[in-house]
Amino acid sequence: MKAQILSTGDELILGHIVDSNASFLARELQSLGIRLEQIHAVGDDLTQIAALIQKLSKTADLVLVTGGLGPTSDDVTTEAAAAACNDVLVRNETAFASMEAYFQKRGFVITKANEKQALLPSRAGVLVNEHGTAPGFSIVLNHCLFFFMPGVPSEMEQMFTLRVKPEIRCYFNITDQIAVDKISVFGLPESRVSDLLSGFDKKFDGMKLGFRAVFPIIEVKIMHYNAGGASMGGKEQSADMMKTAKAWVVSKLENKVFSDTGLSLAQELGKVLTQKKMTLAVAESCTGGLISNMITDVPGSSDYFLLSATTYSNDAKIKVLGVNEQTLIKYGAVHETTALEMARGVQKKAGASVAVSTTGVAGPGGGSDEKPVGTVCIGVSGPGVEISRRYRFKFDDRFQNKQMFAATAINLLLKAVRSTGMNESRL
Amino acid sequence: MKAQILSTGDELILGHIVDSNASFLARELQSLGIRLEQIHAVGDDLTQIAALIQKLSKTADLVLVTGGLGPTSDDVTTEAAAAACNDVLVRNETAFASMEAYFQKRGFVITKANEKQALLPSRAGVLVNEHGTAPGFSIVLNHCLFFFMPGVPSEMEQMFTLRVKPEIRCYFNITDQIAVDKISVFGLPESRVSDLLSGFDKKFDGMKLGFRAVFPIIEVKIMHYNAGGASMGGKEQSADMMKTAKAWVVSKLENKVFSDTGLSLAQELGKVLTQKKMTLAVAESCTGGLISNMITDVPGSSDYFLLSATTYSNDAKIKVLGVNEQTLIKYGAVHETTALEMARGVQKKAGASVAVSTTGVAGPGGGSDEKPVGTVCIGVSGPGVEISRRYRFKFDDRFQNKQMFAATAINLLLKAVRSTGMNESRL
Repeated sequence: MKAQILSTGDELILGHIVDSNASFLARELQSLGIRLEQIHAVGDDLTQIAALIQKLSKTADLVLVTGGLGPTSDDVTTEAAAAACNDVLVRNETAFASMEAYFQKRGFVITKANEKQALLPSRAGVLVNEHGTAPGFSIVLNHCLFFFMPGVPSEMEQMFTLRVKPEIRCYFNITDQIAVDKISVFGLPESRVSDLLSGFDKKFDGMKLGFRAVFPIIEVKIMHYNAGGASMGGKEQSADMMKTAKAWVVSKLENKVFSDTGLSLAQELGKVLTQKKMTLAVAESCTGGLISNMITDVPGSSDYFLLSATTYSNDAKIKVLGVNEQTLIKYGAVHETTALEMARGVQKKAGASVAVSTTGVAGPGGGSDEKPVGTVCIGVSGPGVEISRRYRFKFDDRFQNKQMFAATAINLLLKAVRSTGMNESRL
Repeated sequence: MKAQILSTGDELILGHIVDSNASFLARELQSLGIRLEQIHAVGDDLTQIAALIQKLSKTADLVLVTGGLGPTSDDVTTEAAAAACNDVLVRNETAFASMEAYFQKRGFVITKANEKQALLPSRAGVLVNEHGTAPGFSIVLNHCLFFFMPGVPSEMEQMFTLRVKPEIRCYFNITDQIAVDKISVFGLPESRVSDLLSGFDKKFDGMKLGFRAVFPIIEVKIMHYNAGGASMGGKEQSADMMKTAKAWVVSKLENKVFSDTGLSLAQELGKVLTQKKMTLAVAESCTGGLISNMITDVPGSSDYFLLSATTYSNDAKIKVLGVNEQTLIKYGAVHETTALEMARGVQKKAGASVAVSTTGVAGPGGGSDEKPVGTVCIGVSGPGVEISRRYRFKFDDRFQNKQMFAATAINLLLKAVRSTGMNESRL
């Protein structure tokens, strides 16, 4: 069972966008237990697309195609599919009706250009698109199953999940229940995570690990193929196996797992703050609003997030956060004492249960021998806890420094909020 | 002259990362005037990589390969290259010496695993890597020129720019000077930008447009091939042509060009604030720190950026920004009056020349009939100007709403700061 992906569109070949559709589909195929061999991208070129469809049909069992189903003259994937099968385009009434409904719902009348989108190869099976105008379709050529999906990521992901995935399961008789569990790791590079977990495949039969890096976080996915199948002794045993495997994975990762459900740092923090009925304030300097932005990316964060102050100037640190002027004179802006006063200050100002602060040097300028680029001081202030720490990272990049500083701050805060007694010795 | 790209690495085939290397190289090829036909990605699989190298050598003139040059057993691209050429691996002394120098500089001793990286096909030309351990190399097979580069984006980009690009120019005798100019557009979707500029190719001979979308901004690149070549009458005439073409492009884009040098919104704002010796404060609600984060992504922003307050709670709006409690009771948090008081408040608090504010509903929750998800009020306060506006966007997504709100706010502020008299009627 071999799969390939074919992404079409001039925007890929010209480098206007990265091919995130291919990454999404690659992860989905992995979670179905299907081996992806290659990914190909080609421009909106009828001849080239048709030739690739022909070629792939002879080596693969399954091909997922995206892009080129739109209404304009650039969109030639449907024509290329027909050409590759030696088929003709006919109006597919199901596709047309669903498109008409889509337009009607939005108060528009269907245009001539859109009508073209309902022209599909006569042998095609239609895939209705409820989230856009372009219907998808499937064909079988040389015993290879092709799915054609729109290139707009949100439409493609919906269509894959709702229509294509069930058809793949059915066609290839994938009756296995696949159980998936996730954890999130901070503080280890991907290569180290991979090394620490290298014995997994041998130890856990029928299970596999997947990794996804979103700097500086690594998401580890534990997949159990055939979970709950007859051969595995039912669902209960499968759940037990997953539990054992997850415990093993967590134990290997040197206490760097911050979420045992695969959440982001801000999501996990939000969950714990909500559980503990606590509110949050943030004082940022070198992270420049990034912590605040990460926290407010979580829907519902307005329930616990009260205030963030990005105080770049010393004056703002004094006026808004109440940092002592003498502290700034004596220690400077980048110092543990300043960080702690910032956290205390914003906590008080907002009347929040807990607060975190950052002050450091993100670069490229502003570094000194004593406080080089990559230095950050982080303060945490909460009920019964005050923490202040200095870190030194070695990225040569302002963005990476900001991201690493922000993640380190949220992670430290998370540990503080979690520890019941808020006692630093446990952190 | 036909080029192809081959990206190698299990991380691509498993969907752990998106193939940003291919996008970078696609844009570079376009700027060299070389036609890219297809992009292929394959896992760390010696047989498959070797087969693809063989196949591509018969159809392409130039192939850019990335990934698989590392020290571990997974890294098989070099071996695959040798296999495809029926060649053997030998220690390349130039590669070894440059690696040794790299390690020495960092106080490390070269390891056995790294020594492997200096083993290259005997026919290979080495490409020294000053920014990492993996040397690159070039080979010619079936009259097709291959470049093998590391998969780490920063190393690959350096190697391409410093070593590969000059070699490509030399090998294919690309003596054309290519002049490139950029502008940045906000407020139009990519399809509309493309439509508005559709007559460009016919109007400007020897010139081409490139687009790059980083939501919600579109970067338009104007490329002049053979600029300054003998046939074009020298550099001066070429500069004139570029000027004419750029003026035409700007005139077509309905006043939506905010930077005539291709800067981001925050960079352009920083440039103008610096020119006018002005300082900035920001008050955010629904954008949650995103504006502050965008502004502080610009190196040197500490010269003009004083303070940003993300005030999610009404209490924080009153206490930190001095918003009138009666305003909040009478109009609510999402209102033009509130937005203006927020901007005034943070401007005063920070002692800044100018301030901008946002308050709105990013979703998914919090919307009402009167103020649905996608509503945002933006305030600007500066010397001789006070602006307050309401916008309504129709994205179904919290992230897209935050990004659109933030971009709209910075864009409005930018226009206000630019207009000398700071008079609303000109905006």
